[in-house]
Amino acid sequence: MTVDADRSSSSITSGTTVPTSPTSPTPTGPIPVPPAGSDRLDIAAVTEVLMGTWADARRDARERAARPEFHRPTDLTVAEHRDLTFEQMKRLAEENVSHLMLPEHLGGPNDNGGNVASFEELVVADPSLQIKAGVQWGLFTSAIVQLGDEQQQKAWVPDAMDLTTPGAFAMTEIGHGSDVQSLATTATYDASTEEWVLHTPFRAAWKEFLGNAAIHAKAATVFARLITRGVDHGVHCFYVPVRDAEGELLPGVRSEDDGPKGGLNGIDNGRLAFDHVRIPRTNLLNRYGDVAADGTYASPIESPGRRFFTMLGTLVQGRVSLDGSATRASQLALHIAITYATQRRQFTASDPTRETVLMDYQAHLHRLLPKLAATYAGSFAHEQLLHAFDDVFSGHTDDPEAREDLETLAAALKPTSTRLALDTIQECREACGGAGFISENQLVGLHQDLDVYATFEGDNTVLLQLVAKRLLSDYTSELKSVDRAGIGRFIAQRAEVLAKRHTPWARLAQDLSDRGNSRRAFDSMRQSDFQEEMLTARARVKVEEVALSLRAAGKMSPADAAAEVNKHQVEMLDAARAHADLVRWRAFTAALEQMEDPATRGIMTDVRDLFGLSVIEDDLAWFLLGGMISAQRGRQIGSDLRRLLWRLRPHVLDLVAAFDVRPGHVRAPIALGGEHERQEEAAAYFRAQRASADAPVSEKALRDREKKARRSTKR
Amino acid sequence: MTVDADRSSSSITSGTTVPTSPTSPTPTGPIPVPPAGSDRLDIAAVTEVLMGTWADARRDARERAARPEFHRPTDLTVAEHRDLTFEQMKRLAEENVSHLMLPEHLGGPNDNGGNVASFEELVVADPSLQIKAGVQWGLFTSAIVQLGDEQQQKAWVPDAMDLTTPGAFAMTEIGHGSDVQSLATTATYDASTEEWVLHTPFRAAWKEFLGNAAIHAKAATVFARLITRGVDHGVHCFYVPVRDAEGELLPGVRSEDDGPKGGLNGIDNGRLAFDHVRIPRTNLLNRYGDVAADGTYASPIESPGRRFFTMLGTLVQGRVSLDGSATRASQLALHIAITYATQRRQFTASDPTRETVLMDYQAHLHRLLPKLAATYAGSFAHEQLLHAFDDVFSGHTDDPEAREDLETLAAALKPTSTRLALDTIQECREACGGAGFISENQLVGLHQDLDVYATFEGDNTVLLQLVAKRLLSDYTSELKSVDRAGIGRFIAQRAEVLAKRHTPWARLAQDLSDRGNSRRAFDSMRQSDFQEEMLTARARVKVEEVALSLRAAGKMSPADAAAEVNKHQVEMLDAARAHADLVRWRAFTAALEQMEDPATRGIMTDVRDLFGLSVIEDDLAWFLLGGMISAQRGRQIGSDLRRLLWRLRPHVLDLVAAFDVRPGHVRAPIALGGEHERQEEAAAYFRAQRASADAPVSEKALRDREKKARRSTKR
Repeated sequence: MTVDADRSSSSITSGTTVPTSPTSPTPTGPIPVPPAGSDRLDIAAVTEVLMGTWADARRDARERAARPEFHRPTDLTVAEHRDLTFEQMKRLAEENVSHLMLPEHLGGPNDNGGNVASFEELVVADPSLQIKAGVQWGLFTSAIVQLGDEQQQKAWVPDAMDLTTPGAFAMTEIGHGSDVQSLATTATYDASTEEWVLHTPFRAAWKEFLGNAAIHAKAATVFARLITRGVDHGVHCFYVPVRDAEGELLPGVRSEDDGPKGGLNGIDNGRLAFDHVRIPRTNLLNRYGDVAADGTYASPIESPGRRFFTMLGTLVQGRVSLDGSATRASQLALHIAITYATQRRQFTASDPTRETVLMDYQAHLHRLLPKLAATYAGSFAHEQLLHAFDDVFSGHTDDPEAREDLETLAAALKPTSTRLALDTIQECREACGGAGFISENQLVGLHQDLDVYATFEGDNTVLLQLVAKRLLSDYTSELKSVDRAGIGRFIAQRAEVLAKRHTPWARLAQDLSDRGNSRRAFDSMRQSDFQEEMLTARARVKVEEVALSLRAAGKMSPADAAAEVNKHQVEMLDAARAHADLVRWRAFTAALEQMEDPATRGIMTDVRDLFGLSVIEDDLAWFLLGGMISAQRGRQIGSDLRRLLWRLRPHVLDLVAAFDVRPGHVRAPIALGGEHERQEEAAAYFRAQRASADAPVSEKALRDREKKARRSTKR
Repeated sequence: MTVDADRSSSSITSGTTVPTSPTSPTPTGPIPVPPAGSDRLDIAAVTEVLMGTWADARRDARERAARPEFHRPTDLTVAEHRDLTFEQMKRLAEENVSHLMLPEHLGGPNDNGGNVASFEELVVADPSLQIKAGVQWGLFTSAIVQLGDEQQQKAWVPDAMDLTTPGAFAMTEIGHGSDVQSLATTATYDASTEEWVLHTPFRAAWKEFLGNAAIHAKAATVFARLITRGVDHGVHCFYVPVRDAEGELLPGVRSEDDGPKGGLNGIDNGRLAFDHVRIPRTNLLNRYGDVAADGTYASPIESPGRRFFTMLGTLVQGRVSLDGSATRASQLALHIAITYATQRRQFTASDPTRETVLMDYQAHLHRLLPKLAATYAGSFAHEQLLHAFDDVFSGHTDDPEAREDLETLAAALKPTSTRLALDTIQECREACGGAGFISENQLVGLHQDLDVYATFEGDNTVLLQLVAKRLLSDYTSELKSVDRAGIGRFIAQRAEVLAKRHTPWARLAQDLSDRGNSRRAFDSMRQSDFQEEMLTARARVKVEEVALSLRAAGKMSPADAAAEVNKHQVEMLDAARAHADLVRWRAFTAALEQMEDPATRGIMTDVRDLFGLSVIEDDLAWFLLGGMISAQRGRQIGSDLRRLLWRLRPHVLDLVAAFDVRPGHVRAPIALGGEHERQEEAAAYFRAQRASADAPVSEKALRDREKKARRSTKR
């Protein structure tokens, strides 16, 4: 009970600025914390780096997320959960939690980074509450702010902010989710009355999966094809009242309930349809396109394609915040599973009287620590994304190139972090055995709620495809910068490079140079340069290979070209993932620079190496086949990784403590010390029993004794 | 609407013996079904092979599972769901669904294979109902049948069968799940009253996660340490009444509710504890151990260890049936996702007026088809497991070796199929986009319910460890058969073999022989011999490598040896998985022999190749590093796999149709044709619009036209 006394007491007296893991009771395992005097992680310093630029917003939000009134019981009907979430929303509105997003002329600080950072933290209260808040302020209100003019903003934003007007963001249709350009709802201008006529032409054009649509929405920002004077100007956004003050649907508006979902049941998702619903001309959110009273269309952006993508650009906020929320959810899951794993014991192994703590099993380290490392990588990468987002949305660097970069980065990271979150939560849940399946231990609910993160706000596959296309077009423009005559040469050269990589002789030479010197191989692989070279080359070569495979497609008919591209879709997605890995690795490496304490930087470098080498190991066959990693080094990687796991073992509690997951965020009894208490009680019982005279003796011991006795009698 | 007319009509007129996919509407995608006259899967023939030996039991059970009274609404509170499940249980009892398990002297046919086959099918009705039935008959009743004598069976089994006595299977404790040998509940014999005194000495010894314990159980089969005359004879099983006829807890019995869980909420899991609860001497289930009135202990099995494992042997039934249920759940998920993927369209690619059906995207084939192939492999492997189980449990070959083989096979397959099920269901859910997240489409519920399959009835990691140990001990006894002097030579030889495998020259030679002949490489890799050689060698070498790594452990202290074993735990689990892959591949290959129609066998051989090559690709780095696959072939595998995906594309609906997932099993609207209907309606709308004069013209088209006009004016 003394090993960790300093730490426990510091966690009780410390304020929010020195976050530790206050809920963890004193661990008593063989390697619970680093031995006294040895190198130890500076938890507070790592937390500060993780907190990033918007630390104050995060701290406020973490305090809020810990408050019980924002949590929920684990057994609620869908109806009850929806009611509760709506009540919680009112409280959030009263506390004006989203005011950071408002531009100055609407009375806000235009602090988009802080707003998103604050929003992300809400995930540990209840993901339903978070996403409902995201629908209301991040999508519905944001659409008015981003797409409307000042008059429209002043007319509708205040009521949206204070929840007088709960709203739906009506983009997705049953027939078209990812392919927004093909939406079929129409808004046809009637110059005679100066009105828009909104209409849903067929069932597949019903708006679908809209938060707030089933019950609470009084208005919706509806994406529909703008048609005036016989011309279809493509998808635009309209402000459309849908229910009256009493909550009755307005004439012509229809709604259906999506019913129970796999998670996020605090949100009333539903469908909306419009039967020739009329709204005033001025309800078109007109920043990027407007009609005059006579129906003349005008837009500041001439190209319909670019106009459409500019309007859609506002969607990136959702992806940015999901990236952060998913990462935060991974942190919570790891906090729970790793805390439990340092207390829970099962089977005697190295010590016959004391069972082994789960965290001391190699397999347990192997299933949890690489995910911990990836979660760190994702956290640091997210901070970079948040900066890119804030720069664009707060207007610091709002040019088309910055927007495109932001969109590509968001499209790369959101699929990566949501995938990681689902995999991490599931691994954590399984690592906690049966206890992981009990709702109060939070893990199952977290998986259920975050499940949809993989497919909403941009389906993961579609987003990665987008990244791949961008990488390919970057690569192609690089090609274009070579003069026309040179392109052939350039391609031939590249092909030669690839071919060389594919020769076994090159690899053989590496093998020979490493041979017999596994220490050198270990050191060199743990060097930043090696990892960077490998991950950079991988990201580049994967794009290069697709580009080379597709070079014939340029001369094909569109249909044939599309078929050709489709034949390489899996490789394209793979290239996009390699890009995301590189971004995360670089972000992690950059974050190390911010850690001044040598011990802390050393431990965190181990974590970074664990991330980097895990990524390389996961794709090892590719590196081997390309001759980029020799067989000698390839064989070394597995044992190097296992070595890192053991090196990090003493630091696992510190590493999750740096996530600053607080009591109130953690509500799982298995991570609140119950397991440890039970073990102490059982141990005391057995101690007392051993001390007493009348304890039963085991049959096996008795038999062994008898055998001995017989043997000695025979002699 | 005509392409598939034959098939649709056949599915309407056919009985249950010619299963097709009756719920799929006519697909209209580019490659919905094989072109007329081309090779086509004989669906009914494949279904028959899948049905296996206990086809009749399966058919009855499938009919039952399709009945609406065994389904459940998607929005129920935990309390409502428990009530419903209990009512459904009564109906199952009335229909005497489990009578197949009973031995002749209890009036049954002793058809254990049929009983488990029938039980497995229930998973598509509601997994809660299935597992509640499993608790009642597969565990509680089965414990009495397997561990009790005839008198005990006659006293308690009839009431257990007809649900007069709902029962709990009280083995797991809070402190000990996987490690049953360390259970702490005690049953101390009191010769003065000829009673057992059951007692829970501390909190960690509470029985935990027991189905029926929170509410319904009136009795429990309780595992406790048998103590008599001051000797602890280890864990035995006792029949303990826990509630009276009114459902009130009996004196000294305590119960707690586990509350909401991640799934399976139709089951009232809970805890039980005993405060000096007295039961008659004859309530010890006495087949493997008994006490006389005076407290003298006697057992037909002398070794306490072997006795314990023999008693535990009855648990294998749960693992066998979970293997089958998990496989069936994968079939259902694939049926839903693949049906939807052949109807759902998104983005225009190869055809500008018609969007591409999801199944025609390479990435979609790539995410679903390897799982389809693995599900087939798992289905065939399960049939072998069921035979092994039936042989032992119906007494045909009930010897210790057969039991051990059965246990090893179950321990290898249960983790494999439950992992596959969770991964498959999740992939299917994501492949269906937002629709996959809606509860009525079944996928989220299936994942939630099956989640716990990974950790109950033997935690997957613990089971794989068990397999690895068995493989190692087999390997060691092989070593022992070499004479003592030869062991050193033998090990040295093996080490040399390994070393040779690790030299790059061997690989280089292979590379050169394959070089420039990718056709030869493709053909050879698709040959059964190649796959078998690779998978067999992999399974063997992985064990060999661990054995060699551990050979020093024999001379160590127990603590050091345990630490040494722990350093290779990840490799051990890996070896166990390799073993399971080999078992599945062989079972698939054996099943091909039963398919006489050449076209069917050809298509199914492609599916088998997809499974075999996917397994090899997933571990490709290992094969490359070991020099077992040359770089040339290694590079070929990815493209071979993609070639197989396209070859199988025309057969996907037939391949899921063979699973015989029926209406009633499938209740997901997305797999019942709604998507297709909506698309037809939308297509008709656009056709009409194109035909009419006043359809709006797109701005883009207009601009293009104007540009052209300007250009021609200039000329």
